[in-house]
Parts: sequence; structure tokens; C-alpha cells
Amino acid sequence: MKPKILLTGAFALYCCLATAQEPRAAGIDFLDDQKVIDEIYRLSLTKSKVYNWLGDMCLDIGPRLSGSAQADSAVEFSYRLMDSIGLNPTKQPCMVPHWERGQEMAYFTTSEGGKGELNICALGGSISTEGDGLYTEIVEVETWEDLEALGREQVEGKIVFFNEPMNPENTYTFHSYGHCVQHRWGGAVEAAKYGAVGALVRSLSLRIDDFPHTGSMKYDEGIPQIPAAAVSTRGAEQLSQKLKDGEQVKVFLQQSCQNLPDKQSYNVIGEIKGKKNPENIILVGGHLDSWDKGHGAHDDGAGVMQSLGVLELFKILDYEPNNTIRVVFFMNEENGLRGAKKYAQITEEKGWNHIAAIESDRGGFTPRGFHVEGNSKAVDKIIKWKPLLEKYGIHQLEEGGSGADIGPLQTDDNVLIGFVPDSQRYFDYHHSAADTFDAVNKRELELGMGSISALVYLIDKYGL
Amino acid sequence: MKPKILLTGAFALYCCLATAQEPRAAGIDFLDDQKVIDEIYRLSLTKSKVYNWLGDMCLDIGPRLSGSAQADSAVEFSYRLMDSIGLNPTKQPCMVPHWERGQEMAYFTTSEGGKGELNICALGGSISTEGDGLYTEIVEVETWEDLEALGREQVEGKIVFFNEPMNPENTYTFHSYGHCVQHRWGGAVEAAKYGAVGALVRSLSLRIDDFPHTGSMKYDEGIPQIPAAAVSTRGAEQLSQKLKDGEQVKVFLQQSCQNLPDKQSYNVIGEIKGKKNPENIILVGGHLDSWDKGHGAHDDGAGVMQSLGVLELFKILDYEPNNTIRVVFFMNEENGLRGAKKYAQITEEKGWNHIAAIESDRGGFTPRGFHVEGNSKAVDKIIKWKPLLEKYGIHQLEEGGSGADIGPLQTDDNVLIGFVPDSQRYFDYHHSAADTFDAVNKRELELGMGSISALVYLIDKYGL
Repeated sequence: MKPKILLTGAFALYCCLATAQEPRAAGIDFLDDQKVIDEIYRLSLTKSKVYNWLGDMCLDIGPRLSGSAQADSAVEFSYRLMDSIGLNPTKQPCMVPHWERGQEMAYFTTSEGGKGELNICALGGSISTEGDGLYTEIVEVETWEDLEALGREQVEGKIVFFNEPMNPENTYTFHSYGHCVQHRWGGAVEAAKYGAVGALVRSLSLRIDDFPHTGSMKYDEGIPQIPAAAVSTRGAEQLSQKLKDGEQVKVFLQQSCQNLPDKQSYNVIGEIKGKKNPENIILVGGHLDSWDKGHGAHDDGAGVMQSLGVLELFKILDYEPNNTIRVVFFMNEENGLRGAKKYAQITEEKGWNHIAAIESDRGGFTPRGFHVEGNSKAVDKIIKWKPLLEKYGIHQLEEGGSGADIGPLQTDDNVLIGFVPDSQRYFDYHHSAADTFDAVNKRELELGMGSISALVYLIDKYGL
Repeated sequence: MKPKILLTGAFALYCCLATAQEPRAAGIDFLDDQKVIDEIYRLSLTKSKVYNWLGDMCLDIGPRLSGSAQADSAVEFSYRLMDSIGLNPTKQPCMVPHWERGQEMAYFTTSEGGKGELNICALGGSISTEGDGLYTEIVEVETWEDLEALGREQVEGKIVFFNEPMNPENTYTFHSYGHCVQHRWGGAVEAAKYGAVGALVRSLSLRIDDFPHTGSMKYDEGIPQIPAAAVSTRGAEQLSQKLKDGEQVKVFLQQSCQNLPDKQSYNVIGEIKGKKNPENIILVGGHLDSWDKGHGAHDDGAGVMQSLGVLELFKILDYEPNNTIRVVFFMNEENGLRGAKKYAQITEEKGWNHIAAIESDRGGFTPRGFHVEGNSKAVDKIIKWKPLLEKYGIHQLEEGGSGADIGPLQTDDNVLIGFVPDSQRYFDYHHSAADTFDAVNKRELELGMGSISALVYLIDKYGL
């Protein structure tokens, strides 16, 4: 039988020696760093508990919408988990919105006698329908210009059906999402300006299937509030086809969602104190809340557990970082960013110095690289580390957005980084009942965690 | 509404102009080539039928084990498909093995009164158990050395349980597979040498789950033939734990598989004739047969449909290649390579000149790169094309193995290439009931096809 003993002690000693020496002329001690990084990945794939943690949270607690009892449970679960790893956790209070979905259903009828069920779900924050529900004609638009062209005459009293498919041509699927999301976010407001009584938005997915994908929406002061829902892509295709065939289409929509008073919740924070510069913080994080469909496994259970996994890995290695490594499970990314705002406020109050912050919130898929926000010097430095990371599939080290939760932490000096896994499958799951634990591959999750750990190791050693 | 008109005619003209000009001093006309490659990927993600073809084959025909009625149907289906695209298909006859699985079941009992079902499946080519089945003690080994150490005394009359887990430490999972597969392939022979009456092999998967994974095995002349089966990884863990707990474990194994006389089958071949050098062939291919579990979706429905998709794409582009582009759906890769051998034999007889051959047989996952076999000049040339392909996730252009079906085509002058998608999920599905159409992501499949198309375009234009 193969011996599989982990020489933690000896390796820990090696790490101390390795980190004690100064970088050489070229700025990177490739030989030693490669050994450490190889060990980081090896442990990620063999010893990390990140996959089991995610399974426990997804299967025992489930989805974790801000304000829900499950979000409360997730806070307690996270605190205990951080405590068990020895991260001296704290709960940072913040008030969060409390929206509840209730019941929902929809169907359509056509002027030719057609009828069919629709897979829909209320958008997060939407009001309920009144009385027994809404039953009225729909008008289809793809752009704001389409809506304007229709005008009040053709929109008043109807449901506006926003049907812009995500553009399949973009290799990076987030670009397509970024373009379409405006209709989910602002559709109800714009439609209401023309007298619409409801908004139905094509789900933001590149697949044609039966899952409706929820997500956040807004109401504006002074504009009537109308109920808004997402319809599955197959449902959207069906409605659109009926309209193209010249039929008049009516939709029945019923949803009983409600906005309740804000609730107390928490960011959950743990850390390993730096031995040289404890006042300098390298933050890794994701968001603990999720939408109320599926398990919130990729969005963003994966991200929080990967972030925690980084600190666990340093503990397994018995590695003492120069700087403080802090993990933050942000609350309420999905519908308010209240946790991120609170963390940024406390950061200012306490004068916390984040030299770098890394966010993982694009799913637990096979790693591709990192996006570095607005700091070309840091990008240049990180690109020099590429030879150490390439064999693990990290090739995309480039400028780009970091993440919603760490965004408010930007200063003139620090560096914000977004972890970039492969994006092809993300919108198959995102904000839908399909985002379940079994959609996460253990190795992909672990390799992502290893990649973030390797980057944190390099930043801790060399700075940015 | 956005206009989405494909200017095929104008683009086709552009392509003719682009290919008519000679490469510049640097050897690559980056600007024009990038335009063509962008268009190749755009069409792959918007116009290709590759995903629908795969769905039709998987859902209407199912798995396609050599010699089965489904394999016959798949040959006819493939021929018609190639014909519909205008590829002048031919069926190249070859005789193939004909093994049928029949019924199978297994359970275990322990000396402490434990009992449980086992998820097993016969290995391909195995004989059946005799009479009512086999019920005997198992002995666990991880290596050939373990088996030798046990010796005839402890093995005779028992089932040898080969329990070497795939090594999770390798980032590229095929390396772990390559190490373990020896026990599946040769376990029955080695066990029989010590008087074993059966071989039970841990499934070759990195997951712990309930799917048994079949695959090919051998019998050697002069060594008694004993039945061999794969057990799911969870089943293997369970058996191993009982043995570690000091219990004696017996397994009941019953399988009614049989080896029947060889049957007539076919490779299916289509092509687009080269306009300049029709005698020079660039081959793209995969294997049409599969194991008899699941749909054979990733292994290798994805590969054949991607290969066909390359030629369809050239047709959509109205692109006339300099060299002949040939697609080959090889028969019987899984348990005999008879199609590959036949194709190589006919190649020699007819003096076909394959300047390059590309095989796709590692699943329909997000593309990572290409492995180029034993030709460092060609690797250097391909690496120079990297800037054209990087934005589509193609970073790994390196020396490595190509594929089992094209292997026999190697000459001193030509280049064999294996398409390399991300490997993390492959062995979750490989040779098991989990390898179904719904495990394939449309965009990943299409991006892989686009990547192979882009490479074929460059090879066709610049040679290797």
C-alpha cells in the first residue's frame, strides 16, 4: 500500500525557511515558491474540507435569502465552522431587507384557444399581485427603445414581456449577463411609466430550459409599483412564438410575495493574525446569503467555502503569514449589499488597512485566472507569477472587475481581485432551483480554492 | 429587435481573399486570421448543429457498443448526417467484437453478520459467472506487489478485490487514470495466476458515488479465464472498511455476459475535397462506438459530433480548404480498435497522405488546448498561433499524446494532435450510466468544436 503520510511538521518548517528569505533579484524565488504552491494544490485536492462544508450548508440548511431563518442558521453554522478552525470569528451586525416569496403561478392563453403553464418566479423585491391575480395581454419588447416605440397606447393595462436573450457570442458569459440584466433590474419601473400593470422578464440563462431565474429588481420613487416575475427561457420562447404567429397572448400571473421590515443579520469574519505586519490585511471572501431557490451552491456557497478553505489550508500547512489573512462571509450581496456597506463603514471607522482583497463569486467551476481591478502595476506583478500557476490552469491574469462585496474597499493603494473560474455553465444554475450542491464538482471547487490560496501566499510574501 | 443576419456570402468571399494571400514574413497574418477565427467561434456558438446532433444520437439511439443493434443504427444515422451536409460519406467495413452484458448483480456479507448490495457491472469482454453465481471470500490488494505478497495460498478460490483509488493529486486526471487502468485491464489475468476465481475492480472515478464504471479487460492464452466486474467507488470504500475492521468479507457475484462471434461494422467517413492539394488530408475524428451504459455522450458522442461540426462549419462559411478535410467516425475504439486498425490498413493500401490528424476523445468539456505528438517543430509552430486562440481559453499547446484511433497513422512527416478539454469532470461520467446527454453543456461542446475548427483552419492555411 502506498504511504500517504502528510509531513506537516517538516513542511511547516520548510515554509518558515522559505518565507524568511528575501526575494531574489528577479523578484520571485521560482524554485521554492513552486514547491510551496505545489503543496498548496496537493493539499487542496486531498485534505481540504471545503467540499464537505459546502455539502453540509447546502443540504442541512439550504438556500439563505437575507432575512430568512435559513440565513440565520447559516450565520451560526459559519461562526461555528470558523471557530472550529481557530479563526477567532466575530459576527458583524447589519440590518438586511426581508422579502418573502410566498406562492406563485402563471399560465398563458391565446386568441386561437391555446393555453399552457408557465414556469415563473417572482423577482426579488417584487410586490404581490392584487386580489386573485393579474390576467391581461402581454406585449413583447427586446430593448428600452422597443418599449418607447410602443408607447403608452399599446402598453397601458398590459404586461410588458422583456425578451432579450443573452448573447451566446461572448465567450465570457458575464458580458452577456451584464448587458441583459438591466431589464430584470429596471423593467418594472420602465414598464410602469407607460401604464403597464406587470413585468415579465426572460430568465437570464443561455440554456433553453424550464427553470425560472430570479434576481434583484428595483422600484423608483414616484413610479407606480407593479409586480415583476421571471419566466423560464423555454416559456419565453413559447410566448414569443405565439406573438410572432400573430396571436394575441394573455398571461395570468399570481404571486403572494411580500416585503417585510428589515431584520438584524451579520457578516461573519475570521482571521489568522500576521506575524510581521498584523495591521495589514489580505481579505478573501464571498457572500453567505443566496436567493431562495436551489441551494445557492455555486452562488455563492462555493465562494464562501473556498475563502474559508484558504485559511484552513494555511492552518494545515502550519504557515504563519506575514500579514493578517482575513475571511469575510458577507451578508446580503443579492438584494442590498448591506453587509458589504457595513463592512466598508467599519473599515473606515477602525482604519483597517486592506492591502488586497480577493472575492470569489462566479461559481465553483474549474479555475481560469484572476481579474485585477484598476491597478496596472499590480497586474504586471501578478502576471510575473504566471509561470508558477499555469500548470494548474491559471492563465487569465488580467485587468477586470473584482466583485460587488469588496468593491467599496478600494483605495488608492490597495488591490481588489476577482477570482475567475470558467464561465460557461454559471448561468445554467444562477438564481434558480438548479443551483444545487450536486451541480458542484469537488475537484473544480478545490482547484479554485487552491488557486486563491496560491495567490494569497504570493501576495503575502511579495506584496503587490 | 437586433438584426441577426449572417452575411455568409460576403464572408465567404472575404475568406477566399484571406486564404489566397501568402503568409507574411512573421509567418502569420494575425489581423486577418483573427477575423476568421472570431467568425469560426461566433458561428460555433450560434449556428452549429453539433449539440442537437449529439442529442439526437444519445436520446434516439442511446449507447453504441460494438456489435450491438444500436451501433448499427448509429452507423446509418452518421452516414445520413454526413450525406445531408454534403460530405459524400462512405462506410468502411471492419469486423468488430460482439460482447453482450446480460444481467448482473452482487452483494456482500461479512463475518459479523453485515450484508449489503453492491453496485457492480461486468467489465467489457468478461465471461459470465457459472451456475447460480459466485459466492466467496474477497482479498483486497492495491498493487501487483500486494497480490504477489499474498501468494496462491491466500488467493486461491477467492475473489481478488483491486482497490487502488485514482490519485487526486494530479491536476490532469488522465494521468491518474493511466496509472490505475492496468488493474482493470490485466487484473483478471494476474489474479487467475494465483488461483483466484473472480476479479472485482474499484471503478476508475475520482468521485465517491454509486456508479460502477465498466471498461475493457483482457484474457491471456494459457491462463484460466475468470469473471471480472467493476464495483462503484462507494461500494469499494465499504468493502475496504469492513476488511480494515477485521471482518471476513464474502461477495456474491452473478453476471450473464457473453462473447459472441465477431460482427460486420463500419467506420463512417466524410470529406470536403481540397481545392489546391486534394491529396493532402487533414483528418478530424473520434469514435462512434461507446460502452453500453448511459448514452456514451462524453465518450465519445461529443468527439464525433465535434469532428463533424468542423466540416459543417466550413460549409456554413462556404470556405474552400486548400487540403482535403476528412471526418472519420471510428468504430470499436472501446474494445478492440478494429476500426482504427482497418483505417490505418486502408491508408497504407491507398497511399493516403495525412498531413495532420486531430482526435477528440476526452469529453465535451470547456476547451483548454491541444497535445501534439512527438514533433517539436510542429509544437513550436502551433505555439506561435496561441495569440489567436487565447481569448477562447486555448492556453495549453504542448507536446503530449494524441489519441488511440489516430495513433496508427503516425509517419515521419505528419502531426497527430489530441484535443484537450478540461479534465476535471471526465471520470465522473466515463464508461458509466452517468455519461448521458444532459451531462454535456452546449456551450462547452461548441467551444471545443470551434477550437478544433480554428486549428484546422490554421493548419490548412500554413501547414505544419
